[in-house]
Amino acid sequence: MSDRTGAVHALASVLPTTATTDARGHLQIGGCDVPALAAEFGTPLYVYDEATIRGACREFRVQFDRVLPGADVQYAAKAYLSPAIAAIAAQEGLGLDVVSGGELFVARRAGFPMARVVFHGNNKSETELREALDAGVGRIVIDNFHELALLDRISQQRGRPQPVLLRVTPGVDAHTHEKTTTGIADSKFGFPLAPGDAEEAVRRTLAADSLELLGYHVHLGSPIFSTEPYRRGIQVMASFAARMWDAFEFPWREFSVGGGFAVAYTPDRVPPAVADYAQAVSRTLHAACTTHDLPVPRVHVEPGRSIVARAGVAVYTAGARKEIEGVRTYLSVDGGMADNVRPAMYGSRYVALAANRMHDAVEGTVTVAGKFCESGDILVREAGLPRLQAGDLLALPVSGAYHLAMESNYNLATRPPVVFVGQGRARLTRRRQSYDDLLALEEDATQVERT
Amino acid sequence: MSDRTGAVHALASVLPTTATTDARGHLQIGGCDVPALAAEFGTPLYVYDEATIRGACREFRVQFDRVLPGADVQYAAKAYLSPAIAAIAAQEGLGLDVVSGGELFVARRAGFPMARVVFHGNNKSETELREALDAGVGRIVIDNFHELALLDRISQQRGRPQPVLLRVTPGVDAHTHEKTTTGIADSKFGFPLAPGDAEEAVRRTLAADSLELLGYHVHLGSPIFSTEPYRRGIQVMASFAARMWDAFEFPWREFSVGGGFAVAYTPDRVPPAVADYAQAVSRTLHAACTTHDLPVPRVHVEPGRSIVARAGVAVYTAGARKEIEGVRTYLSVDGGMADNVRPAMYGSRYVALAANRMHDAVEGTVTVAGKFCESGDILVREAGLPRLQAGDLLALPVSGAYHLAMESNYNLATRPPVVFVGQGRARLTRRRQSYDDLLALEEDATQVERT
Repeated sequence: MSDRTGAVHALASVLPTTATTDARGHLQIGGCDVPALAAEFGTPLYVYDEATIRGACREFRVQFDRVLPGADVQYAAKAYLSPAIAAIAAQEGLGLDVVSGGELFVARRAGFPMARVVFHGNNKSETELREALDAGVGRIVIDNFHELALLDRISQQRGRPQPVLLRVTPGVDAHTHEKTTTGIADSKFGFPLAPGDAEEAVRRTLAADSLELLGYHVHLGSPIFSTEPYRRGIQVMASFAARMWDAFEFPWREFSVGGGFAVAYTPDRVPPAVADYAQAVSRTLHAACTTHDLPVPRVHVEPGRSIVARAGVAVYTAGARKEIEGVRTYLSVDGGMADNVRPAMYGSRYVALAANRMHDAVEGTVTVAGKFCESGDILVREAGLPRLQAGDLLALPVSGAYHLAMESNYNLATRPPVVFVGQGRARLTRRRQSYDDLLALEEDATQVERT
Repeated sequence: MSDRTGAVHALASVLPTTATTDARGHLQIGGCDVPALAAEFGTPLYVYDEATIRGACREFRVQFDRVLPGADVQYAAKAYLSPAIAAIAAQEGLGLDVVSGGELFVARRAGFPMARVVFHGNNKSETELREALDAGVGRIVIDNFHELALLDRISQQRGRPQPVLLRVTPGVDAHTHEKTTTGIADSKFGFPLAPGDAEEAVRRTLAADSLELLGYHVHLGSPIFSTEPYRRGIQVMASFAARMWDAFEFPWREFSVGGGFAVAYTPDRVPPAVADYAQAVSRTLHAACTTHDLPVPRVHVEPGRSIVARAGVAVYTAGARKEIEGVRTYLSVDGGMADNVRPAMYGSRYVALAANRMHDAVEGTVTVAGKFCESGDILVREAGLPRLQAGDLLALPVSGAYHLAMESNYNLATRPPVVFVGQGRARLTRRRQSYDDLLALEEDATQVERT
């Protein structure tokens, strides 16, 4: 990485690990020239660096296994699922956290080992539960009494009990965005601890012959920039596990601390290292188990964002530039809220880079606007950039999670292509959507009455 | 409508105009039984009442034509565009406001008359502008200097000048949501009035042989629950038009007051009638033209939401019910933020109905939650409903605009089907997306490495 100069150096924490620049000032990822990728595949373009994904998978496996031997790392597919991602997660020894029949389907198509799949969700349908049982998923995380009864009923027709965890809402506020905090009592997710629901769920699950209770699952929110919520969540759950031991002699064999591990979207807000999360989970769990005289359960963690966010870079072409005297300068790009809804939805902050002019000095601050007909379609409120012209390339780092997963066809924009890069090779994993594709679900699109 | 009783009566302002209930307490739309539609097509399901769409088209045409003869009503396709909608808008004599190559493509496929198409957007690409010229769209609304130069250049290769309007940002705050207000000076849209940009744009456009300037376009935001912003926008623009007459002897021949007309999402917040909007526009415009000694231009209005919102009803099946003592009761349904992102994005409020139990008394307040793995996925925070069981049907009125237009495949949910109803007949205009469809853009989906 001798070429880590200027913008790449300053932004190393938010770029893929293989990012460099060449003598022309071009951004390079995975040994591939980003302007060349843009020329070949067009923009908007999503580039994923395979080495960064694999590195993140290994970091989670190594750091958690070091302090909690045998810990399972399950990739949270909701962050971004494609056959290519599923294959990498499988190869790296991760499990997979899926939340719908659609995610389960893609995992199966990708040949993901079903024994390593955990099925989540606050309102799984009977069809989805049947699909999960048919596929032979390793764990189903039961969210509520309705589902408990439903799963018990449809599992009875099978030869062996289905391994399950119970999702418990521990009443811990992770202080994330209100749209993404999930650990508090007033949540649509899980059995609340306080009114005795969680205990009743344990009782009913243990009584169900068709279900094999292995332990508990919590998820506190996302993204969590501190280890403290995990500590409190574990302490609360260990205390609950101790009560369940006293009540039913049920020792937790497995315990999922969920996901929510944060990533740096901008260099000024950096989360704890994976090792710090692992240490915090391990120390708290060991201490709590000692306090309550409990066995240490096998731990599951469910990183999603932290596996794929940094690996992904969105590449746009600059278009109209609008300087409003005394107000601000808008630079519009050819994508926006259809491929990245996070700024409009959560007020998320990003940095932007000039992918074809990485050595040029920053000239001033512009507002990077998308092309969608909505004022909220602003990708970066304050971006320090060289003076860009129409045709220059903008790269938005940390675009790998919850962009394509939440993408829309708003304004009937077509979905961007996806390229995986590594060792100087680029592989198109998803083609650009065509205009014709926009009508794929329409019935008799060509037969409507002409006027 | 002898059957307008109970819930339908109380909620008449937010239901399609044909909504009734039958003796069984089933919601009927367009003469079709909603529970029967749900059984046939599955849920989530989007039902559009054709009579409500046509009624809204006619109301806009009649009310504006009455006070502003020759006024053009252009349906803003961004609210929801499909071949079926485009065909209805064409039949009802409306024009079409499109904002992308994709919308233009669908309009062409539907046989929409291109002379009645107006092309908008803050960052139209060269490709899109060429597509618009090739298609022969009636008007292009120029947003900025970059586009002005670009369009001038590519129009020169043609035989006749392209009719255009200039989008001007009048500096009027419509006090809508900050994500959807567009009339203020600090906007990515349009030529700002204050620093002289709009005047310079007039000068350059008049000087461009390949462009035929017809007038101005403003858009103040959406949804606008008052006629006042339109009044102020018109006064500001008439004053500007007078200055342009003085400077260039250019009389505005056309003037678009944009869209943004509100609809009632809940019975407690009802917008002005279309006649009121039309009266306000007409009176202000006539008065301003008299003041400034200007001709009254041909007026364009661009209703989107107000054409389709009320016509659409989203139908869900109830699943898990979670009563958290002393906190709230969550009722989860089989759709949510993937098909309706508005509550999560804008905090939008809706009401909910029990589509198969319309005669049952309201038993209490529940929170209607979607099935997506995110706390923000709440469709209705406080819904007064009978005590529903898993399998009961929930209808969400006023789901016709900006639901399907912004839909995603979040959590790899498949997109719901769309049914148009009228006179007792149901027509499937869009089939449900399949699991296989989720992989339509993936390359070599079945060839990824197995592990």
